[in-house]
Amino acid sequence: MSEFAKTEQNRVRRLPARGAYDKATIYPIVDQALICYVGLVEEGGQPVIIPTLHARRDDEILLHGATTSRLLKYAATGAPLCITVANIDGLVLARSVFHHSVNYRSAVLFGRGALVENEDEKMAALAAFTEKLIPGRWDDARGPNAVELKATSVVAVTIESASAKVRTGPPKDDDEDYALDVWAGVVPIQQHFGAPEADPLLNDHVALPGYLHALCNRSL
Amino acid sequence: MSEFAKTEQNRVRRLPARGAYDKATIYPIVDQALICYVGLVEEGGQPVIIPTLHARRDDEILLHGATTSRLLKYAATGAPLCITVANIDGLVLARSVFHHSVNYRSAVLFGRGALVENEDEKMAALAAFTEKLIPGRWDDARGPNAVELKATSVVAVTIESASAKVRTGPPKDDDEDYALDVWAGVVPIQQHFGAPEADPLLNDHVALPGYLHALCNRSL
Repeated sequence: MSEFAKTEQNRVRRLPARGAYDKATIYPIVDQALICYVGLVEEGGQPVIIPTLHARRDDEILLHGATTSRLLKYAATGAPLCITVANIDGLVLARSVFHHSVNYRSAVLFGRGALVENEDEKMAALAAFTEKLIPGRWDDARGPNAVELKATSVVAVTIESASAKVRTGPPKDDDEDYALDVWAGVVPIQQHFGAPEADPLLNDHVALPGYLHALCNRSL
Repeated sequence: MSEFAKTEQNRVRRLPARGAYDKATIYPIVDQALICYVGLVEEGGQPVIIPTLHARRDDEILLHGATTSRLLKYAATGAPLCITVANIDGLVLARSVFHHSVNYRSAVLFGRGALVENEDEKMAALAAFTEKLIPGRWDDARGPNAVELKATSVVAVTIESASAKVRTGPPKDDDEDYALDVWAGVVPIQQHFGAPEADPLLNDHVALPGYLHALCNRSL
C-alpha cells in the first residue's frame, strides 16, 4: 500500500488541494523533521503534546526515552496517538494582509504504539535515532551497555492513517490587488548545522571526526 | 502573578531540574517560536495535533484562521487545549550514545479559548500576527476589509497553567567515559531568514522595503 485511505480521521479539511495521502509525500516530511510532537489524552479529556525525537522504520514511528518517561509509558499502552511534524520553509507576503501565508510541509499521523522488547530490535532502533541525526556517529561513540539498554524504552507506533499538507510557491492575491505597489514574494526560512563546539572537557588530542565535518553547514 | 503554580498538570516529570514555571522563562520561548502545535481531542479520545501560527498577548495565546477551520471552531468551544512549542538549539554529542541529547527550549501551555468578537480587538490581533513575523509589514500591506475580517476567526486562549523545559551546554558523560577518545561537544542548529524572492508577478518598480532588508539573514 503506497497511499493511506482518505477517511474522516485524516481528511485535510481546510484547503483540501494542499492535502496528500501518499507515502511518497508523507514519509520524506516525517524523515526530514528533527523532532515530532506526540499527542496524548489525560483523564478528563485534557490533551497533552510532548515534543520528542523520532525515527521511522517503514510504516512505524520509533520513539525512545527513559523507561520512567510518561510519554513512553503512555505510548506503550496502545492508546490512540497523534504524531505531527511541520517544517516551515518561508513566509509568504501577499499584497493584502489577508493572503499572507507560510510555505510549509506538515504531516499528521495516527496510530498506536507497542513496546519494542527484543534487545536486538531495540539496539537497531537506537542506532536508527543516532544515525538519522548524525550519520557515522553510532560506530564512533560508546554503545549502550546492558544497564543503559534496560533504562531505555523504545516504542514502535504503527502508522494506521496519515496525511500531509504542503504549500509552496509565491503568494496568490485577489486580481484587483496586483496593481498595488506593495512588495510581494517569499522570505525563505533556512535551518542548518553550525560549527561544532567541542566539550571544554574534551581530551586535547581528539580531532573533529570526518562525519562531523560533513555535517557542518549542512542544511536541515 | 509571575509564575504558574506547579501542579499535577504542568509538573515536569522527567529531569525536573530542567523545568521552569516562571513567565520570564516561558514567554520568551513562546514568542520566539515560529509556530505552535495545538492539541484537540476528538470523539473516542483520539488526540489531534494541528500546527499553526500564534501570537501572545499578555497571558493569552492568539490563534487565527478561516471561520470554517476545524481548529478555530474547536478552540472557540472552550474545550481544554494544550499548546506546545519547541526550539531545538543543537545536537549534544556525548562520548556514550546513552548520554546523547539535544539542547532545546520547549514550553507546554494549558488553557481554554474564546472567540474574539470585538472588531477592533480582532484587527489588533491580526496586526499582532503580522508584526510578530515581519515588523513593519502591517502598515505596508493592504489591510483586511469587512468581508475578509468576517471570514477570519480569532480565538484567544487564556493560559491557565504552563511549564518550560530547557537544556543548554555541553554533554555530561559518566566519569569513566571521559578518558575515551571520542569527540564530544555540541553541534549548533541555527534558523535564519534567507534572501527574499520576489513574486514573479511583482510590478517592476516596487523595490524591496527597508523592513525586509532588516529581516534578511536575521536569526530566528
